[in-house]
Amino acid sequence: MPSPGKPARSSAVISSRENRWLKEFRVALRGGLPTESGAVGVEGVRLTEEALGSGCRIEAVLFSETGRRHHARLAPYLDREEIAFPILNTTDRLFEGIADTEHPQGVAALVEPKKFSFDDIVRPAISGASPLLIVLAGLQDPGNVGTILRTAAAFGATAAITSASGQSGTTSPFSPKALRASAGAALHLPILPGPSLAILLAQLSSSNIRTLASSLRDSADQPALAPWEINWCEPVALLVGNEGLGLPEEIERSADTRIRIPMATGVESLNVAAAAAVLFYEAARQRNVLSTT
Amino acid sequence: MPSPGKPARSSAVISSRENRWLKEFRVALRGGLPTESGAVGVEGVRLTEEALGSGCRIEAVLFSETGRRHHARLAPYLDREEIAFPILNTTDRLFEGIADTEHPQGVAALVEPKKFSFDDIVRPAISGASPLLIVLAGLQDPGNVGTILRTAAAFGATAAITSASGQSGTTSPFSPKALRASAGAALHLPILPGPSLAILLAQLSSSNIRTLASSLRDSADQPALAPWEINWCEPVALLVGNEGLGLPEEIERSADTRIRIPMATGVESLNVAAAAAVLFYEAARQRNVLSTT
Repeated sequence: MPSPGKPARSSAVISSRENRWLKEFRVALRGGLPTESGAVGVEGVRLTEEALGSGCRIEAVLFSETGRRHHARLAPYLDREEIAFPILNTTDRLFEGIADTEHPQGVAALVEPKKFSFDDIVRPAISGASPLLIVLAGLQDPGNVGTILRTAAAFGATAAITSASGQSGTTSPFSPKALRASAGAALHLPILPGPSLAILLAQLSSSNIRTLASSLRDSADQPALAPWEINWCEPVALLVGNEGLGLPEEIERSADTRIRIPMATGVESLNVAAAAAVLFYEAARQRNVLSTT
Repeated sequence: MPSPGKPARSSAVISSRENRWLKEFRVALRGGLPTESGAVGVEGVRLTEEALGSGCRIEAVLFSETGRRHHARLAPYLDREEIAFPILNTTDRLFEGIADTEHPQGVAALVEPKKFSFDDIVRPAISGASPLLIVLAGLQDPGNVGTILRTAAAFGATAAITSASGQSGTTSPFSPKALRASAGAALHLPILPGPSLAILLAQLSSSNIRTLASSLRDSADQPALAPWEINWCEPVALLVGNEGLGLPEEIERSADTRIRIPMATGVESLNVAAAAAVLFYEAARQRNVLSTT
């Protein structure tokens, strides 16, 4: 294996150990699948920096020849005695074959997202913080999933739960597309791959967390509240549903409160990530977690 | 050409006129380009319905064999004496070759977006409404452009302006991807393809419209205001910038006000469409245009 200072010049000199790593990176980045040990791939200097700073276990870092120029920015994390992962080098050509993006920056990492239990999720690490959870139920678009996590983190959410809704699960928040859209928030915000929605509602209820179902419709016996009519300072979990279908009616019915963003007449609905942004903004304003500096 | 009731069974019987139409649809849908007469393509029953109801000039409507089952939903627009456009039929196989989506619904239309002047834009059609404009400056992602238009329409924006920022223009709001993300709002909300940002700022200023630059940074001499510190009831134009770079510093400096959404500490920025949603929600709440029914 070449030393960090001397990038590999040709694929012909690749060792079998190096080849194994390249395969792992390819599965994680281009394939979008976790490696056998459960690591996911991140690509680009910004996301790699986020991964290195997240406190998650790093499995390996990979530079291409041109990617080496980003080493300086990552040096605070890499140039240390005690790092427990290999820093690998490859050619630009091989990196392009591994990457998921069209014009890769030549930096990538394999990172193992932290695992959380339901108890971790309902007891926020920040002492005194009341849980503010986002439940993603049956979301199909990795861009929406990532954007919602990014927004949730920006507005002080304490954790996220992904859950299946009806026939459809929620797409992984750790796929390359979702990770990019999250701008790394998926590695910082605690995320729990949740059980089915019905079980989850029961669990949240027994933890005294109020469930708010983001709704597309009004119901005669349970009218939807506007965002500003909710007390966001108490422990709450906001449930958002599938892009086209919303939440299943029975879930909206079992949740503590229906919530609906008022809109100009004639408009049917908002994009789910835009709706989540509006609701979390309202929560953050009430909770006073916003910093203007 | 087959009658509306009898879909074409084979590509071998296609007339040259029909063939010309199929080519137009292919350019607009798969190619994502306007036709020679300036029409854009929309696909799917929902978007076609939006197009037919938008008041825009329709050039043609196309059904595939299986797409014919959506005819009933569109009948109020199609089954009329006075319609001035052809309703065409093709095979499923040919439709798939024309469509931009993987599993097309078999319904599409060519629609000519309305054209607006700067004067139209600054004098909203709804009498008494104070202009609430969104200026998209250098946005590259059609999903973001469409989502922002959808959100703007939902929160009572009166018009949108697309503008170039630095080296980069804003991607067309009428590409198939942007139209889909806008859920048809791009055909309802007046949109002006704007001049350069510097000229636009001068035009808005001489029309007494306050320019708000959505900012990623604070500036010592011009601190950014929080969304709730703005008076959204006066005539305002909100400027949002490129996904990675934001607005150019000189534009933020020349705008009347910098505006920044406060965030939890440690988070750098929001997705541009999420930020726009939050700001327009604030505007809509102040303007009281929201309907809860």
